[in-house]
Amino acid sequence: MPIRLDTEHSDFPARFATFLGSKRETSVDVQDQVSAIIADVRARGDEALIDLSRTFDRVDLAALGIKVTDAELDAALASIPAETRAALEFAKARIEAHHARQRPTDETYTDAAGVTLGHRWTSVDAVGLYVPGGTAAYPSSVLMNAVPAQVAGVPRIVMVVPAPDGQIAPLVLAAARLAGVNEVYRVGGAQAVAALAYGTATIPAVDKIVGPGNAYVAQAKRQVFGQVGIDMVAGPSEVLILADATANADWIAADLLAQAEHDTAAQSILVTDSDDLAARVVAAVDSMLDTLPRAEIARASWRDHGAVIKVRDLDEAPALVDRVAPEHLEIQAQNADRLAARIRHAGAIFIGAYTPEAIGDYVGGTNHVLPTARSARFSSGLSVLDFMKRTSILKLDADALGKVGTAAVRLAEVERLQAHGRSVSIRTNAGGGQ
Amino acid sequence: MPIRLDTEHSDFPARFATFLGSKRETSVDVQDQVSAIIADVRARGDEALIDLSRTFDRVDLAALGIKVTDAELDAALASIPAETRAALEFAKARIEAHHARQRPTDETYTDAAGVTLGHRWTSVDAVGLYVPGGTAAYPSSVLMNAVPAQVAGVPRIVMVVPAPDGQIAPLVLAAARLAGVNEVYRVGGAQAVAALAYGTATIPAVDKIVGPGNAYVAQAKRQVFGQVGIDMVAGPSEVLILADATANADWIAADLLAQAEHDTAAQSILVTDSDDLAARVVAAVDSMLDTLPRAEIARASWRDHGAVIKVRDLDEAPALVDRVAPEHLEIQAQNADRLAARIRHAGAIFIGAYTPEAIGDYVGGTNHVLPTARSARFSSGLSVLDFMKRTSILKLDADALGKVGTAAVRLAEVERLQAHGRSVSIRTNAGGGQ
Repeated sequence: MPIRLDTEHSDFPARFATFLGSKRETSVDVQDQVSAIIADVRARGDEALIDLSRTFDRVDLAALGIKVTDAELDAALASIPAETRAALEFAKARIEAHHARQRPTDETYTDAAGVTLGHRWTSVDAVGLYVPGGTAAYPSSVLMNAVPAQVAGVPRIVMVVPAPDGQIAPLVLAAARLAGVNEVYRVGGAQAVAALAYGTATIPAVDKIVGPGNAYVAQAKRQVFGQVGIDMVAGPSEVLILADATANADWIAADLLAQAEHDTAAQSILVTDSDDLAARVVAAVDSMLDTLPRAEIARASWRDHGAVIKVRDLDEAPALVDRVAPEHLEIQAQNADRLAARIRHAGAIFIGAYTPEAIGDYVGGTNHVLPTARSARFSSGLSVLDFMKRTSILKLDADALGKVGTAAVRLAEVERLQAHGRSVSIRTNAGGGQ
Repeated sequence: MPIRLDTEHSDFPARFATFLGSKRETSVDVQDQVSAIIADVRARGDEALIDLSRTFDRVDLAALGIKVTDAELDAALASIPAETRAALEFAKARIEAHHARQRPTDETYTDAAGVTLGHRWTSVDAVGLYVPGGTAAYPSSVLMNAVPAQVAGVPRIVMVVPAPDGQIAPLVLAAARLAGVNEVYRVGGAQAVAALAYGTATIPAVDKIVGPGNAYVAQAKRQVFGQVGIDMVAGPSEVLILADATANADWIAADLLAQAEHDTAAQSILVTDSDDLAARVVAAVDSMLDTLPRAEIARASWRDHGAVIKVRDLDEAPALVDRVAPEHLEIQAQNADRLAARIRHAGAIFIGAYTPEAIGDYVGGTNHVLPTARSARFSSGLSVLDFMKRTSILKLDADALGKVGTAAVRLAEVERLQAHGRSVSIRTNAGGGQ
């Protein structure tokens, strides 16, 4: 049974704090193992990739090739049903259209002192996209990572995906082809991250690495950060559904289960002011579980991490939601827009009864790579900005330098950086020599 | 002597690659030490901070107090000369004015399918600013980190600064007071980062940690990333000056030295098409070094990491600059604007003879926290956006869900996430029951 909390109970603050602090993943310490793998790839390049892939993925890359050929990619795309291809193209077009609006604008202006200030945005040159391998194939994740990079204008988009026993899901390769990925390598784990960060003879280094992975991949991204850029370190996913008595219990149950089926560490939370709705949702979840192919996973997630939180009224909810800072927030209630406007910390908000979170996973157009595990407190979903960077611009003439230079010289002096001060005064005193 | 490279020499590509790859910092492996410190602070809180500060900073925080009192902050502000305070206030006002223009705008729109998409920006709730201690006091860094957080609307801005032998530079405390920092704690190193990330009885946890530090601080930020957000991991600083024969050799020499005086690991690079200018700059550097208080540091930086790169003409330069991806780029040449427009990778560009980089350090208004050590390839200088995050918004009605739902159900099916599909179809088939 999911945990039940009630804001009217005197132990609510303590129990809610415990709930927030509970770990949903057993963190394995792979720090030293990953350091060793990275060192190995830096020292031996492709050879290390071949050896490590033989060990971890039971695949002989020396025979199969590290790089997936264009012919393989074309064959994968040709192999998927037309209806699937159409759905992927439909999703891609919608993601593209929305992300195109995220392109930032450059600006320069001259202020009252005569100082010209500004910034210019440019794309990253090369991006590496990590895609997990194995039985689960998520072509939608390929689109969600590759399309924003393309919209940003990244000239070189590289994908790495492990090939356990030599296999890569054709759907993933097909999505890569559709999304304009330029190169695909059949390598995974910390070794793939190391190869992307430092380069090997076969895999030229990239500038930034994005995409989810297991504990080894996450730790490897952490360790190469600085050498290259990385996106967030993804944790287990969650949904919080805010609902009142007017909501449809079956629809909410379906949405809770859509989250729960991802992973036993996933989390589904219902916050409602209606005991009756809560009861109906819980019953509907139990009933739907019986017919769900991934029932075992969903049941464990709902049992171990699910929660039903009863509030006095929905006015109480935004403060609770902000403390959870959920990756996904659904609001199925009257005044859903007004409630949404009061939320500060959430990766994405899905407003109204006809906006199940799954739409955002596939075809809404917004990105489904969102901050998990309370990181919406400080980070945003993936966007075009993650594949661009800003160069700031400053331009002064003699007059402007005269106006602002004195304060700069003073600050350089108090910081005891005399050469800083001199680089200003040598110009402002130019008439009288240095 | 700095290294001399010439693009007309046949060995240029190899030597330039070696130059780019050369390490300017000896990386010490403090991974395990830092893990132990973080674990200690998580387990023992304030007690650990007190013990570790006694060991590393020779200070008794049990007696002195972990928190710097308001009275101490006021006293620090009162202790600095009026002219210094005026310079700090001048800098703060200019930084504020520029950063206010970085505030992002919210957006929602409804597309042709009837889907409403958008995003909303909100500030982070609490930010921790790490400020290095010791003899060097950089009040400008306090401003550059705290002002953007304030402009972003961060309600709680916390500063940590070590107090070796009990001492904190009054300038740093004064700047914190001026910049609107809400709380200051006299603790540094990995233990301060751990306290900010996980909280102790005295220091409530924050959501994001920014600011530069030594190898322990950098490693600690790396390890707590995910629990909290972090800014970039700062490396040694660099300037690249692009100049032609029209440039003033003395001014360039002053700018190269302003960079070199920071740190023996700092790097100053001149790229020019003029042998004559190069010779005059090198001579001017040598001559100015004699009268520089921090000559020893600057001389070591210039000798060990300095470079003079001769190009055939400045048209060759942008490609070279992009490979260096310098933190600071000065362009002192005819057509400086045109050259600046061709650069893709630089933290900041300082255009024209009257824009010494030091202006950007203090009073230009742009941020001086910029990507170092080639990370301008994938990251940007600090900005208001670093203290905010974006919540994406999606809203469909029955009609819109009807239009886009089929493709979502299809993709859920191929990803074998049947509960995802059902959360859509249960709504679109609502007329005919589930």
